[in-house]
Amino acid sequence: MPHTTTMKAVVYEKPFSVVICDVEKPEIQHPDDIIVKVTTSCICGSDLHMYEGRTAAEPGIVFGHENMGIVEEVGTAVTATALSCLSMWAAVDAPTAKKAALPSVPTSIQDLLAVPTGEKCTTVTLYVAMGPYKGGQAEYVRVPFADFNALKLPPGKEHEADFALLADIFPTGWHGVKLSGFKPGESVAVFGGGPVGLMAAYSGIIQGASEVYVVDRVQERLAKAQEIGCIPIDFSKGDAVDQILKLRGGREVDRGVDAVGYQATTGDGKTEQPNVVLESLIRLVKPTGGLGIPGLYVPKDPGAPDSAAAKGYISFPFGKLFEKGLTIGTGQCNVKMYNRYLRDLIIAGRAKPSFVVSHEVSLDKAPEAYDKFDRRIEGYTKVLLHP
Amino acid sequence: MPHTTTMKAVVYEKPFSVVICDVEKPEIQHPDDIIVKVTTSCICGSDLHMYEGRTAAEPGIVFGHENMGIVEEVGTAVTATALSCLSMWAAVDAPTAKKAALPSVPTSIQDLLAVPTGEKCTTVTLYVAMGPYKGGQAEYVRVPFADFNALKLPPGKEHEADFALLADIFPTGWHGVKLSGFKPGESVAVFGGGPVGLMAAYSGIIQGASEVYVVDRVQERLAKAQEIGCIPIDFSKGDAVDQILKLRGGREVDRGVDAVGYQATTGDGKTEQPNVVLESLIRLVKPTGGLGIPGLYVPKDPGAPDSAAAKGYISFPFGKLFEKGLTIGTGQCNVKMYNRYLRDLIIAGRAKPSFVVSHEVSLDKAPEAYDKFDRRIEGYTKVLLHP
Amino acid sequence: MPHTTTMKAVVYEKPFSVVICDVEKPEIQHPDDIIVKVTTSCICGSDLHMYEGRTAAEPGIVFGHENMGIVEEVGTAVTATALSCLSMWAAVDAPTAKKAALPSVPTSIQDLLAVPTGEKCTTVTLYVAMGPYKGGQAEYVRVPFADFNALKLPPGKEHEADFALLADIFPTGWHGVKLSGFKPGESVAVFGGGPVGLMAAYSGIIQGASEVYVVDRVQERLAKAQEIGCIPIDFSKGDAVDQILKLRGGREVDRGVDAVGYQATTGDGKTEQPNVVLESLIRLVKPTGGLGIPGLYVPKDPGAPDSAAAKGYISFPFGKLFEKGLTIGTGQCNVKMYNRYLRDLIIAGRAKPSFVVSHEVSLDKAPEAYDKFDRRIEGYTKVLLHP
Amino acid sequence: MPHTTTMKAVVYEKPFSVVICDVEKPEIQHPDDIIVKVTTSCICGSDLHMYEGRTAAEPGIVFGHENMGIVEEVGTAVTATALSCLSMWAAVDAPTAKKAALPSVPTSIQDLLAVPTGEKCTTVTLYVAMGPYKGGQAEYVRVPFADFNALKLPPGKEHEADFALLADIFPTGWHGVKLSGFKPGESVAVFGGGPVGLMAAYSGIIQGASEVYVVDRVQERLAKAQEIGCIPIDFSKGDAVDQILKLRGGREVDRGVDAVGYQATTGDGKTEQPNVVLESLIRLVKPTGGLGIPGLYVPKDPGAPDSAAAKGYISFPFGKLFEKGLTIGTGQCNVKMYNRYLRDLIIAGRAKPSFVVSHEVSLDKAPEAYDKFDRRIEGYTKVLLHP
Repeated sequence: MPHTTTMKAVVYEKPFSVVICDVEKPEIQHPDDIIVKVTTSCICGSDLHMYEGRTAAEPGIVFGHENMGIVEEVGTAVTATALSCLSMWAAVDAPTAKKAALPSVPTSIQDLLAVPTGEKCTTVTLYVAMGPYKGGQAEYVRVPFADFNALKLPPGKEHEADFALLADIFPTGWHGVKLSGFKPGESVAVFGGGPVGLMAAYSGIIQGASEVYVVDRVQERLAKAQEIGCIPIDFSKGDAVDQILKLRGGREVDRGVDAVGYQATTGDGKTEQPNVVLESLIRLVKPTGGLGIPGLYVPKDPGAPDSAAAKGYISFPFGKLFEKGLTIGTGQCNVKMYNRYLRDLIIAGRAKPSFVVSHEVSLDKAPEAYDKFDRRIEGYTKVLLHP
Repeated sequence: MPHTTTMKAVVYEKPFSVVICDVEKPEIQHPDDIIVKVTTSCICGSDLHMYEGRTAAEPGIVFGHENMGIVEEVGTAVTATALSCLSMWAAVDAPTAKKAALPSVPTSIQDLLAVPTGEKCTTVTLYVAMGPYKGGQAEYVRVPFADFNALKLPPGKEHEADFALLADIFPTGWHGVKLSGFKPGESVAVFGGGPVGLMAAYSGIIQGASEVYVVDRVQERLAKAQEIGCIPIDFSKGDAVDQILKLRGGREVDRGVDAVGYQATTGDGKTEQPNVVLESLIRLVKPTGGLGIPGLYVPKDPGAPDSAAAKGYISFPFGKLFEKGLTIGTGQCNVKMYNRYLRDLIIAGRAKPSFVVSHEVSLDKAPEAYDKFDRRIEGYTKVLLHP
Repeated sequence: MPHTTTMKAVVYEKPFSVVICDVEKPEIQHPDDIIVKVTTSCICGSDLHMYEGRTAAEPGIVFGHENMGIVEEVGTAVTATALSCLSMWAAVDAPTAKKAALPSVPTSIQDLLAVPTGEKCTTVTLYVAMGPYKGGQAEYVRVPFADFNALKLPPGKEHEADFALLADIFPTGWHGVKLSGFKPGESVAVFGGGPVGLMAAYSGIIQGASEVYVVDRVQERLAKAQEIGCIPIDFSKGDAVDQILKLRGGREVDRGVDAVGYQATTGDGKTEQPNVVLESLIRLVKPTGGLGIPGLYVPKDPGAPDSAAAKGYISFPFGKLFEKGLTIGTGQCNVKMYNRYLRDLIIAGRAKPSFVVSHEVSLDKAPEAYDKFDRRIEGYTKVLLHP
Repeated sequence: MPHTTTMKAVVYEKPFSVVICDVEKPEIQHPDDIIVKVTTSCICGSDLHMYEGRTAAEPGIVFGHENMGIVEEVGTAVTATALSCLSMWAAVDAPTAKKAALPSVPTSIQDLLAVPTGEKCTTVTLYVAMGPYKGGQAEYVRVPFADFNALKLPPGKEHEADFALLADIFPTGWHGVKLSGFKPGESVAVFGGGPVGLMAAYSGIIQGASEVYVVDRVQERLAKAQEIGCIPIDFSKGDAVDQILKLRGGREVDRGVDAVGYQATTGDGKTEQPNVVLESLIRLVKPTGGLGIPGLYVPKDPGAPDSAAAKGYISFPFGKLFEKGLTIGTGQCNVKMYNRYLRDLIIAGRAKPSFVVSHEVSLDKAPEAYDKFDRRIEGYTKVLLHP
């Protein structure tokens, strides 16, 4: 076990700037903690919200909530199973962990775990600002409530990139489809072909969707959508709803997924119009269908295009929604609901979500990777960092 | 079988005026039709939307989608069971029927019935304007697709007023609770103590809610809410959410039901603010909870307070909704999902929804009843008409 | 419209014998009927139960409950949609229809359709004996309650064999998986690689099973299972449960499907032991898992190996079932729950269930096809008859 | 905090004999443990299975898995919420805890909690033999994984007897109804009017059953059933199914609950016939209905009436079950799924399950109470012990 007291980490300096710094190596603070030596940490689209200064995240914090590595140290309350897993590969979901202890949202593992539906936590917190936790874009990360948060993985490097996506975006895309009320055989339209949108589309394909449409304007994303069996729709070439209805002879789709969120834009890709995706989905989805909203909407947006949006208000055709009898499901994914199933699909060779990964770079290249991913240039779709 | 060719009916003349006229007695038009001699027809809150000129309803139509009576004539395709029911009491759900044939929404019994989830129809139509159907506030009513629409009732007059509510408002209130994702043992806040709101509250009580709050400003409604075991909240005396949170020591409720809809008002009861109920529910309902919206929102409102609302747009705190991970369920109730169960609860003496009925009058008193119910005076909560 | 009064049909003569006879061409008997000119009719495994004299089926009846063809005549109550479908291709599900009218089980379309869960009919009948209906292994077939029973298909011959399987076995296999409580990502063991078993296995694959095991002893079946991505288990080579547990390092599977039913045999393929599949599944499925039973068990079996089985009694380890907290779902499939979804999967090219079809022959070859299919020789897996 | 090293406890001596002994006071063994000073511990029907020598329970163990008391000592890993609850009243569910650590079923809090459906644990163990745990029919009890197992209760003695039932039988009865697939408005038949059966019946009433039948032969039980709004059926006076069908004019019931289990008897109350309840329910429940089985069936019964039953085999009409398309749900209740909801119903005054309690005695009267409860004499329905 190394005894260095510092390590390298990706630190948020100011909007549009992260730097590699030496920070304190984490230590066990509570009997339920483990310390993990990070082998892979991803940059997530929600990191970009912080990176752009569109959240309450403070300078000085360490980013990274999609982490994976080898368990190095184990708290005294962590149970036998985990104790025998000192060499396990763990996909660590910091956002979930974070929920557990934010002082402003008092909670405990009891609240987290005794949720009867098992579907969601009863407390949530604004994960976009990392809460009181230090992220895993670093050499080591402390994982609280490890028995709950860590997922045991088979040894070896075979599925490293696939497993890394179990910490957030694969379950989140899967959850988006579930929130829409999807059933096998139905058609789905996914707005947004970023990592979460592609994971949602892929989840629809895996679960037996008859047709999955993916709406975006970035060619690399549309190409990946087509590659996994979806029908790409380029909304820079005309209204997305019109294009889809035309392809379907006027028939609406069964389910819609909004994987864009509050920073939605019109066809030019530049003008923000926060309600444009909701408006489209209400027009596109059939009566009695459903909308799943994994894409982020925030209660406070310092950079919003107008004062209502700055307070998180969105205006959209609610009368039409009601007339059609649609349902809406929203919110952050409880990844623990799904990640064991998705891990098994990966191990069995039936899911290979790493198709979404465009770049794998070493940790010290993070500043450059953030910059390019944020600008969606050079095909930056999803970046994995290796310390 | 009577051979009169005319009958009395409640006819919509113009905003704020209905009259009793002689109109043609209906006849079998299709082998699936039945003709029912009406014994009870209710005035529904959604009739008032038409009455006030807040819908697309045209002068000259007959109102009444909550009807009940004795089957008098049976089409040739109606099956054996119904044939043996010539003396049955039928609660006839015109809104569902209406859905079946609106020319602008081409459908058929096949579409209606083959809905795999059984939860909702695949086509809906703006029932507030009666579609192509003549209502049942009359001596007779034609019921299309009778095998589907008519509900068999035991003979006799014992539960007449309870059964009449099976055609719409009891199932609709029940549906509102279901749309919220309610589970027994949970707490529910119902905004709106009109007939549908009271039926939603009562449905929560019947299904094992731990606590049901009913928010209104009309004393008769609040009194009835208390009578059935709910906690009344008078929002003319202060913010409803604050009052409820105070009673609960700050704990949010599990589920919320909006039984008000687009004509919501602020505490004075006069100033329309279409988003006020949604805003309140998003604040009041716990993270991962749910909102059921049986209250009507329309895609076009000629009398809306502003131009966005006139197109059915509502602005509300969607960022907060997302942060809490709430779900929303909306839309018109498919009464066939529930009415057989609710009938059995009535027969067994376990439900007595007629507590909501304030007045029973003869058909020719309908003009006066409409006027008083619309103004919510003299305790007019729910009116039954008897031809 | 042809005016011949007779047509050719497959008639049951006695155990192990069917013949081609001239019988009366069906006519419209009720306004809800349609007459369909059959283009394809399948031989089902449940036809074999009748063929072998293991049911109450009487000599003289016409077999065939998996039918498909062109609508030729339409009753007066059949609605507009169907009326415009005179040239539609209809997959007709006679078993469902049969349920509608068996005199001993008085029911009506109202009962069938108002089922609130939409999941199953409230009345069922012993479909293995064809009820009061004439089957579709003939030139024409009458379809009762056509608006409910007929499924509209796109014109043309492109997916003829796939669509024909929508009448029973594809939905029945799909239902078997659903009855087990299956969720995407789980592992499934299907006992029985006949047509329904293969459809269940294929349904698991389509819906995102991580692993599907198919247990049989017929090489053609095991080969087909492997072809669609399943893991074949030959139980003539050793205990199936032991083989699967060994492959999985001792881990039980999540779900089990019994697609064998009451005529189960031990490893030699000859000795009937009715409880052998249930016993195996209870051992193989993990605690809190589920068993789906689409395979037929009958309340009376004239050819049972013992007197308890003759009355439909099966003895199995119920204490173990309880200790594991397993669920069991049984029964005939309501094909209307699924067949529109499955049709859309076929049209979209995402499902091609006709891989299970081994032989397509003309109607007059039916006697020979029954004989070979019943003896499972010459690779007879699933036979389609074309009049 | 007391420093005595011994305490009084109810110890199993041999079949039909328990004694009060001095045993070691429990101590914290793991950071997740708490020590609770017991204020109430119940005698459960499953304690009687051990008491009668019908399980693998060894002499010398301490009974009691329905415990409640004041938290006295807290392990270092127990989280903040619990730490602030040193004076809380905890209903402690030893059976769940027991599941957590049986050496033969290696598991951990991770397995228990990461169950995605949240419905059930993925490992179960034969709780009837107490596993490696010391029961709570004693002055103190150690609760493992306290954050998970302990339920926080309001201070005070107001609902002491009601809360004590949250540890097992109230949730178990509730679960039995859920296992049957029950929906509000349906009719339910509960076989067995012992504590679990009465709790199942009461759960049906609370959740909106139209009719609940309770079948037993003990007058005190039937009287209590009637008292809570159920219809009592005395099966010593004639076949229970016949009686119920007669009352319902021949209509079957929607759901059935078996709260009897493997020690079922025929009408004389003496002759054991393990399949008699299953046989009755299959006859009584309507097609497509469901059976919930909370009543215990065991894989090994030393005192079974025949050799098949000794191995936990039960023979019942599976062909009829299949023909009706029934479902079966079995197994031990995961009380954490329900107990927070049920606690809230008690606090709100909407549930008062303590009606089932017939006797409250001090701990040292336990031997006598066991004897009388086991013989069902002097109205012993449910006994609470107070140390």
